[in-house]
Amino acid sequence: MHVMIIGAAGMVGRKLAERLARDGQLRGDAIASMTLVDVVTPESPAGFDGQVSLQIGDLSQLGVAEGLVARRPDVIFHLAAIVSGEAELDFDKGYAINLDGTRYLFDAIRLAQQADGYRPRLVFASSIAVVGAPLPYPIPDDFHTTPLTSYGTQKAICELLLSDYARKGFFDGIGIRLPTVCIRPGKPNKAASGFFSNILREPLVGKEAILPVSDDVRHWHTSPRSAVGFMIHGATIDLQKVGPRRNLSMPGLSATVGEQIEALRRVAGDAAVALIKREPDEMIMRMCAGWAPGFEATRARELGFTAETSFDEIIQAHIEDELGGSL
Amino acid sequence: MHVMIIGAAGMVGRKLAERLARDGQLRGDAIASMTLVDVVTPESPAGFDGQVSLQIGDLSQLGVAEGLVARRPDVIFHLAAIVSGEAELDFDKGYAINLDGTRYLFDAIRLAQQADGYRPRLVFASSIAVVGAPLPYPIPDDFHTTPLTSYGTQKAICELLLSDYARKGFFDGIGIRLPTVCIRPGKPNKAASGFFSNILREPLVGKEAILPVSDDVRHWHTSPRSAVGFMIHGATIDLQKVGPRRNLSMPGLSATVGEQIEALRRVAGDAAVALIKREPDEMIMRMCAGWAPGFEATRARELGFTAETSFDEIIQAHIEDELGGSL
Repeated sequence: MHVMIIGAAGMVGRKLAERLARDGQLRGDAIASMTLVDVVTPESPAGFDGQVSLQIGDLSQLGVAEGLVARRPDVIFHLAAIVSGEAELDFDKGYAINLDGTRYLFDAIRLAQQADGYRPRLVFASSIAVVGAPLPYPIPDDFHTTPLTSYGTQKAICELLLSDYARKGFFDGIGIRLPTVCIRPGKPNKAASGFFSNILREPLVGKEAILPVSDDVRHWHTSPRSAVGFMIHGATIDLQKVGPRRNLSMPGLSATVGEQIEALRRVAGDAAVALIKREPDEMIMRMCAGWAPGFEATRARELGFTAETSFDEIIQAHIEDELGGSL
Repeated sequence: MHVMIIGAAGMVGRKLAERLARDGQLRGDAIASMTLVDVVTPESPAGFDGQVSLQIGDLSQLGVAEGLVARRPDVIFHLAAIVSGEAELDFDKGYAINLDGTRYLFDAIRLAQQADGYRPRLVFASSIAVVGAPLPYPIPDDFHTTPLTSYGTQKAICELLLSDYARKGFFDGIGIRLPTVCIRPGKPNKAASGFFSNILREPLVGKEAILPVSDDVRHWHTSPRSAVGFMIHGATIDLQKVGPRRNLSMPGLSATVGEQIEALRRVAGDAAVALIKREPDEMIMRMCAGWAPGFEATRARELGFTAETSFDEIIQAHIEDELGGSL
């Protein structure tokens, strides 16, 4: 079994590589090799017995996708993207990487399929940004995609391409519509949604964090651990059961900022909560109003995708995975 | 006022040019010139006082879109596409023309907008093929797009691009999700749905027609006259009222094949109905099962788009527009 992760230097990509290294197998087959790809050098996961190839490559550059597909991975996780804030600021770059890059990859696989019957499992990381306000709560599985950002547009287009290429038999594809990943470890990236993680991650280690929105803002979350679990399940699941509608809204936890804060209080006490500084930001509040409050995710749950059911669990997962198991 | 029709040699494009020639104005402004574009030479509409420029061009070829946009039309109707059957058989051609061609056009407008503030009204002909079975009846406006053909995928992707480019202010865009157009005049094209028109058009002039499906097949129809009306209204409507969700399922008439036949009987008698020969075709029946039975089209109706309410009216429109007003 040869597994490729494109976008392996990103947060979910890195954790996915670590999980695969730890498991040593996927779908019951031993993982003999991993190819890890990103625009910066990915890290080799610790404790992996197989071969690791680290590749630097930008899918939007001609020939890069063909080079990767020439390695004939059995499973491809495609997580590479530039984030929403950057895609909104740089229209050309967003479309080049998030749309054209994905299409180059899909077409390289299609040509390989037509050449020698190659047909990998392809797991694509999509996003809840494919929907846009006004939104019902919860959002049903059959709700239309009306993104209000270029990033969301690009993800929605890639979902459509994925379904069509899968329908034509070019690959065994599945699209995983990820909730906002919380608690993100490390430093904030350019995502405007960073505060959802900051207000928990920073106080857990005694640091201040800024909350730019009101406590009643409701959003849709999943832990990094569950996000990785969705990817693994997407690589494993019987696609006959999924049928032609290949893009699934993942389960997650719908919670308000106030509920996040109360979970922090239960886990880390009043002193931690006191480190959250309220500094309302009109721009972020306006953006928030368009974000998804939560999904039904009925199909994904029925297909065996699972997620946390309380923010206490999400915080606990962070303490175990990032803070050595205790505060 | 300079109006451009891309896809002007197609059935709806030709009728749109004729209607504009007859009206002589659009949005209250006199039409001084029309540019008619297609891959074959379009016809110049009769009785038009302004200037007509006939252009042969394939949007999927580099530079063609830029050349068209350099003419700075005030309103662009983009109807050019290869039909569903052909897009399904020729994957590369379908994506090249229906997706890449549209994106080249949108990008040429974007670059013009950034260069000198040019911002045309763009009316895009989409299709009910953006949805795919299993489908509810009627299909609500907020139902997701899960096409089961490459053609439907390409149209759904162009809808997403249109919304994003409109949101960014590159053009004033609107997507018109056309029902199946019935009664199509002239000869059948490669569309598998041709029989919906054949079973009315041919008997009305004393010719036999083949019906490959059962009488209980329900589908979603509009006359060529109404399809042209949607395009005109799309060019005229205040887009502030439409908001960010720019792709609208048009109103239409939901009818079974049996209801079509009974309308034919009322208009043209038993002798006409007797010309319909039942020759069941398994492939067409399977395809039919995935087609849209009908839409709510609530938003479009509220925004002033109107269509026929009985098949008698649709047949009457055909008699008036194609057969000189009487049988």
